Amino acid sequence: MIRPLVPRLAIIGAGLIGSSLARAAREKHLAGTIVVADADATVCARVRELGFANEVTQSAAEAAKDADIVIACVPVGASGAVAAEVGPHLKPGAILSDVGSVKASVLEAMAPFVPAHAHLVPAHPVAGTEFSGPDAGFATLFENRWCIVTPPEGADPAAVDRVVALWRAAGANVETMSAQHHDLVLAITSHVPHLIAYNIVGTAAELEETLTSEVIKFSAGGFRDFTRIASSDPTMWRDVFLSNREAVLEMLGRFTEDLTALQRAIRYGDGDALFEHFTRTRAIRRSIIEQGQETAAPDFGRRAAEKPKHEQS
Amino acid sequence: MIRPLVPRLAIIGAGLIGSSLARAAREKHLAGTIVVADADATVCARVRELGFANEVTQSAAEAAKDADIVIACVPVGASGAVAAEVGPHLKPGAILSDVGSVKASVLEAMAPFVPAHAHLVPAHPVAGTEFSGPDAGFATLFENRWCIVTPPEGADPAAVDRVVALWRAAGANVETMSAQHHDLVLAITSHVPHLIAYNIVGTAAELEETLTSEVIKFSAGGFRDFTRIASSDPTMWRDVFLSNREAVLEMLGRFTEDLTALQRAIRYGDGDALFEHFTRTRAIRRSIIEQGQETAAPDFGRRAAEKPKHEQS
Ligand SMILES: NC(=O)c1ccc[n+]([C@@H]2O[C@H](COP(=O)([O-])OP(=O)(O)OC[C@H]3O[C@@H](n4cnc5c(N)ncnc54)[C@H](OP(=O)(O)O)[C@@H]3O)[C@@H](O)[C@H]2O)c1
Ligand SMILES: NC(=O)c1ccc[n+]([C@@H]2O[C@H](COP(=O)([O-])OP(=O)(O)OC[C@H]3O[C@@H](n4cnc5c(N)ncnc54)[C@H](OP(=O)(O)O)[C@@H]3O)[C@@H](O)[C@H]2O)c1
Repeated sequence: MIRPLVPRLAIIGAGLIGSSLARAAREKHLAGTIVVADADATVCARVRELGFANEVTQSAAEAAKDADIVIACVPVGASGAVAAEVGPHLKPGAILSDVGSVKASVLEAMAPFVPAHAHLVPAHPVAGTEFSGPDAGFATLFENRWCIVTPPEGADPAAVDRVVALWRAAGANVETMSAQHHDLVLAITSHVPHLIAYNIVGTAAELEETLTSEVIKFSAGGFRDFTRIASSDPTMWRDVFLSNREAVLEMLGRFTEDLTALQRAIRYGDGDALFEHFTRTRAIRRSIIEQGQETAAPDFGRRAAEKPKHEQS
Repeated sequence: MIRPLVPRLAIIGAGLIGSSLARAAREKHLAGTIVVADADATVCARVRELGFANEVTQSAAEAAKDADIVIACVPVGASGAVAAEVGPHLKPGAILSDVGSVKASVLEAMAPFVPAHAHLVPAHPVAGTEFSGPDAGFATLFENRWCIVTPPEGADPAAVDRVVALWRAAGANVETMSAQHHDLVLAITSHVPHLIAYNIVGTAAELEETLTSEVIKFSAGGFRDFTRIASSDPTMWRDVFLSNREAVLEMLGRFTEDLTALQRAIRYGDGDALFEHFTRTRAIRRSIIEQGQETAAPDFGRRAAEKPKHEQS
């Protein structure tokens, strides 16, 4: 047998991302042993049934013992607690990483618990769906998607390389940047889009009852796909907005200013301003298509076609 | 041969919607003769090549002569001019209709030009794509989508029935309501969603150049699908916002108030308020799925899978 990339891989949290990574590691033989930890006994039982881990435990500390790479796959707000629990058990040379959608706050929360003999290398696979839990995951989730690795200053290059190699082997394209820069880019490409989707669905929910039922009926005019995003996990997204406050508020401020200008153009009947704005935005789309970042089926960065069964259930 | 639903059907404007309706009429034998009018000689030549019309002319007046139903398939802002042109040529009992995304202003603009011996029955098929022109259309566009018919007060029931029958035969489910109510429902299900999509793409386009290029690169986190909507036809959407000003400003006002509340919750770290909001929006999505208004592949109400070739070009 070829020596696997990671002799012992510990995944803390068997949700959508954790279970997808475990499945990818299993299918692609990336780890000698895959240990999955989840605090919930029911989830552990389900993980055993699904069979994508070699070992399953309720204890993150136990999973971290002897592991070469430990990856926290929990909501951003829980990453500090996970680091506190596993930190003391990290062996010399071990790497602690995560998959959180925000990076600066995660780095700050986890760093104090990483012993000097271990390494902290946070990462964020830019891939997901609006579903949660161990049943929602699938091995191909990261295929051809970006994974952004955000090493702290002075990080051990060999440790960074190992994390990069793991994500590449899981199918992702990897890019490295600072945590701060990651948070700014993601604020505009993901966090603010999610916030405004949650918001417009909320606005519709507040309408008079009969109007809301018509909104549901005629949702195919554009609204419907906002509801898809707005059905994403509330805990995950609460944590994202609380943890990336500064960048989100900055981008939201720009968004609101721009929206006020459009609103004003509508109020005063300035058709030229509207036309000019609606023409300018087309260039961005052209670039996205040119760079091969679009798929034929729009899916909000999600592989709906691969998991349609959730939709029908 | 069975007597067709419409002996002579005139379609004014051979764009996405006009050419789709002509194609549907052709495939389903809904009309004895399909006349397509488009002011642009190049478009007329292309329509002849595509072969979905029996007659093609640059003159809307000529197309309307002897027609039983005349349907204006032009931007909302041009519907008055089309009515002015075809009105004098409508034969006794003829019906003038349209497909505009806004209804009250269209009714107001067209009504003065409809002679007493003819009928005005506006309609709006809630179906479309972000593409334009005669090549973008396809016969199945209206299949299982809603078409909203908005007869003016005192409209001839038989004339309304004929328009309803035509859209049903083209594959749509038909609902009747007042123009004002239509405009309010569509403001929240379609117009405001399009506006905020245009807006966030605009905000991204205004960022520092290097940041914009990263936004394009990592667009799969949610942003990407906003760019799809924001690549819709600028003329059509300028007209929509100018014509449905009141309802759009009303819904936009509610949207902004709600967004301000979310922004405040983020600023002051009110995780409970965020969590509560993100949970509430899930109910709306459940209803949409229960009512069968969702497809496995999210597509912003668009049949992307049927027209992927535009995407690759
Ligand atoms: N979903 C996406 O689209 C996406 C994309 C990229 C990155 N991410 C990031 O991936 C991470 C996990 O998201 P997910 O989508 O996989 O969520 P998920 O399916 O809801 O799974 C969350 C996991 O975290 C565990 N957990 C929750 N609260 C915890 C706590 N206080 N302490 C310890 N463990 C806790 C859960 O344990 P139980 O089983 O006990 O509930 C579960 O195993 C998040 O940081 C998120 O930002 C998500
Ligand atoms: N696209 C959608 O998603 C959608 C969905 C439902 C309803 N609608 C409504 O359908 C209507 C047509 O939209 P579309 O998507 O089919 O647009 P389109 O593909 O751009 O076609 C527009 C058509 O209108 C003609 N036209 C433009 N300006 C005109 C003017 N001033 N006078 C006369 N004709 C003019 C164009 O003629 P040329 O060939 O000479 O340019 C073309 O034939 C709009 O009212 C829109 O609100 C659109």
